[in-house]
Amino acid sequence: MHRGSNQLRLADFNQAVVLDVVRRSPGVSRAELQRRSGLSSQTISNITRRLIDDRLISESTPEGGARGRPSIPLAVNGDGAFSIGVHIDPARLTIVLLDLAGEVRRQQQLRTPQATHPTEVTSLIADRVAALMAEAGVDRDRVLGLGIAAPGPLDVRAGVVLDPPQLPNWRGVQLRADLHDATGLPVLLDKDVTAAATAELRSLNDTSTDFVFLYLGSGVGASVVVENQVLRGTTNNIGEIGDIIVDPDAEQLEGFGRRGGLAAACVPEALVIQAARLGLLPLPNLDDYLAIDDSCTELCRLASGGNGGATRILRRAAARVAVGLGVLVNLLDVPRVVIGGPLWNRLSDTFLPVLPELVSAELVATRDDVVVAGSAVGEHVAAQGAGELVLDHFLAPRPSALMVG
Amino acid sequence: MHRGSNQLRLADFNQAVVLDVVRRSPGVSRAELQRRSGLSSQTISNITRRLIDDRLISESTPEGGARGRPSIPLAVNGDGAFSIGVHIDPARLTIVLLDLAGEVRRQQQLRTPQATHPTEVTSLIADRVAALMAEAGVDRDRVLGLGIAAPGPLDVRAGVVLDPPQLPNWRGVQLRADLHDATGLPVLLDKDVTAAATAELRSLNDTSTDFVFLYLGSGVGASVVVENQVLRGTTNNIGEIGDIIVDPDAEQLEGFGRRGGLAAACVPEALVIQAARLGLLPLPNLDDYLAIDDSCTELCRLASGGNGGATRILRRAAARVAVGLGVLVNLLDVPRVVIGGPLWNRLSDTFLPVLPELVSAELVATRDDVVVAGSAVGEHVAAQGAGELVLDHFLAPRPSALMVG
Repeated sequence: MHRGSNQLRLADFNQAVVLDVVRRSPGVSRAELQRRSGLSSQTISNITRRLIDDRLISESTPEGGARGRPSIPLAVNGDGAFSIGVHIDPARLTIVLLDLAGEVRRQQQLRTPQATHPTEVTSLIADRVAALMAEAGVDRDRVLGLGIAAPGPLDVRAGVVLDPPQLPNWRGVQLRADLHDATGLPVLLDKDVTAAATAELRSLNDTSTDFVFLYLGSGVGASVVVENQVLRGTTNNIGEIGDIIVDPDAEQLEGFGRRGGLAAACVPEALVIQAARLGLLPLPNLDDYLAIDDSCTELCRLASGGNGGATRILRRAAARVAVGLGVLVNLLDVPRVVIGGPLWNRLSDTFLPVLPELVSAELVATRDDVVVAGSAVGEHVAAQGAGELVLDHFLAPRPSALMVG
Repeated sequence: MHRGSNQLRLADFNQAVVLDVVRRSPGVSRAELQRRSGLSSQTISNITRRLIDDRLISESTPEGGARGRPSIPLAVNGDGAFSIGVHIDPARLTIVLLDLAGEVRRQQQLRTPQATHPTEVTSLIADRVAALMAEAGVDRDRVLGLGIAAPGPLDVRAGVVLDPPQLPNWRGVQLRADLHDATGLPVLLDKDVTAAATAELRSLNDTSTDFVFLYLGSGVGASVVVENQVLRGTTNNIGEIGDIIVDPDAEQLEGFGRRGGLAAACVPEALVIQAARLGLLPLPNLDDYLAIDDSCTELCRLASGGNGGATRILRRAAARVAVGLGVLVNLLDVPRVVIGGPLWNRLSDTFLPVLPELVSAELVATRDDVVVAGSAVGEHVAAQGAGELVLDHFLAPRPSALMVG
């Protein structure tokens, strides 16, 4: 019997410090660990021994050539622990299995059940999480926890989904407690945009470039990274940008907040309504996010195929999104915009060729070198971020209190 | 002869650490300093001795009652060093003298010369700075430096005013070098909104509430404080918000960027144009910020006196500003908005009674407890912040490289 992740969950502060350094600096030696952590040689020796026994870190062969006893490189053992990240978009459910090194071992995308009650979604997640662990041959007690990325507004501290406009029937849902009951795993709930920025930041590998992350899915949102920190806002609900006016001449669309707002400019529901008004597509059932998502896929397919009306709709959306990005960049003075989320893959062909120039035209003079790029992580960015937030929770020396279990 | 501020300018890192702790914790003992700084007892003893000799800190009488040798409380000596802060608004020039403890010793507001060349402003500042030091009886070599808060966009690292739309004829002005030549003092240049947020944050005394600062002067801007840090943006030009659309139905005003934008909604020039269109006031010379400022003062006076047209103009401005604040709060998830700048005193009577409710109506559900308040520092907030940035430059253990001299 090994202590495994249970041991990790109960880790003391010093062990967390050591594991954090090893995780961020693969190949680090005990002497270097001692120097960086300020801990005694004996403490480092004890902790690394315990972490090796628990298969959380491992030694590799030292490089020869140095005088004296060579130092032994340490690195985290990917198989030592895992986390699972789930991203709940109203139309798409994305699940990833991350190992201790942050590598994606498995990923999966499903259609989100258009449930009359959220427990259908909870049950599906619990089933898929169990299946994913089984398929990957991962012991349950090696899984540190389950991270959930969901649309806001959330009460992150209480683990509750408040009343997201994009998830009807999800009012005051105790999602964290429900999923803990359904899976037996510790569960962490965070906002989709925060999770996405976390994964994107990690993927940039300390290039220390501030950026805004624009999330495009069934809804629209943003997050902000400043000096390698993901800002989360005082109530952990950063990034509500749907009401930013991006086209004062836009026609009114019912149900999208302010006329000419960013949500009405780019969420799938608004795009398919615009397409239906032009007769490009039949209007889908607007209570069914799957039908909307399918319609939006068809709209993007039409545009890729050269359909003039579809192309005009998406180009207009790009122009409006550029106005919104201009607001964010002018306000925050960031040199980089990253765009991702479940809708992005379908829009990027139309958006990326025109967006940099459109955004540039919105900026005050000092910032015309802003980079506009698609997510380097990909469509599972928010799910991966949710998994990374779980790893951070256990591996960072300052664990937060956002977890149950 | 004492080494005074020259000594301080050349301070080593350890001395900066010690002085920083004393500054932030008046009454701290040597033992506590040792604990907080991690420096040796001997080093603390040497450094505090040097700081006392230089009149930068002083000892006060220990409280009795404790066993053993009582610890002697240390505090910065306000008279030990000074800084001067200048805020250049196109219509108003504000100058403050700060002591080492951050107290305002003198303050003064002047009309900004409507110069054909910026050197007129530079000369005036140099004259007033010399007069202020003389009036206050402050030795020149006790003045650490001169901080300048100016409208952006700036090249803060180079100390250059780039091309602020609100300062015509100020294109690529080497303001930091010019003022160093004119005053002989070290000079630091920073953005008005950044300086204002710095002073406001200091005045809040570590209550650690995130906030957005809305700057209202001849122009409009914003700054953001997150976890006791003033965000400044990658190019130090945070807070360009004038183009945020706040009223899609607004009429076009030439020269204010986007139709319906925030600048067109609330800067004095736009307000007096609106008043002139209604026949409330003669249209002032729009190339003269003093004439605009005077007209705007008259408009506010009319509103305070019950004039219906003037009141409607300012109430409409408040409603539009509320939309802009809604964008900032929804995006950044801050619990507090602080408004200040040279225009604020004239608007606060009209704005403050209505703004909290108007802003609240703009917010997503989780944030309807956002506080909207006027600056606690007052009209000289940006000048005071410029002075505090100078103190921080010399007193913080991580001095930046933004100073010449």
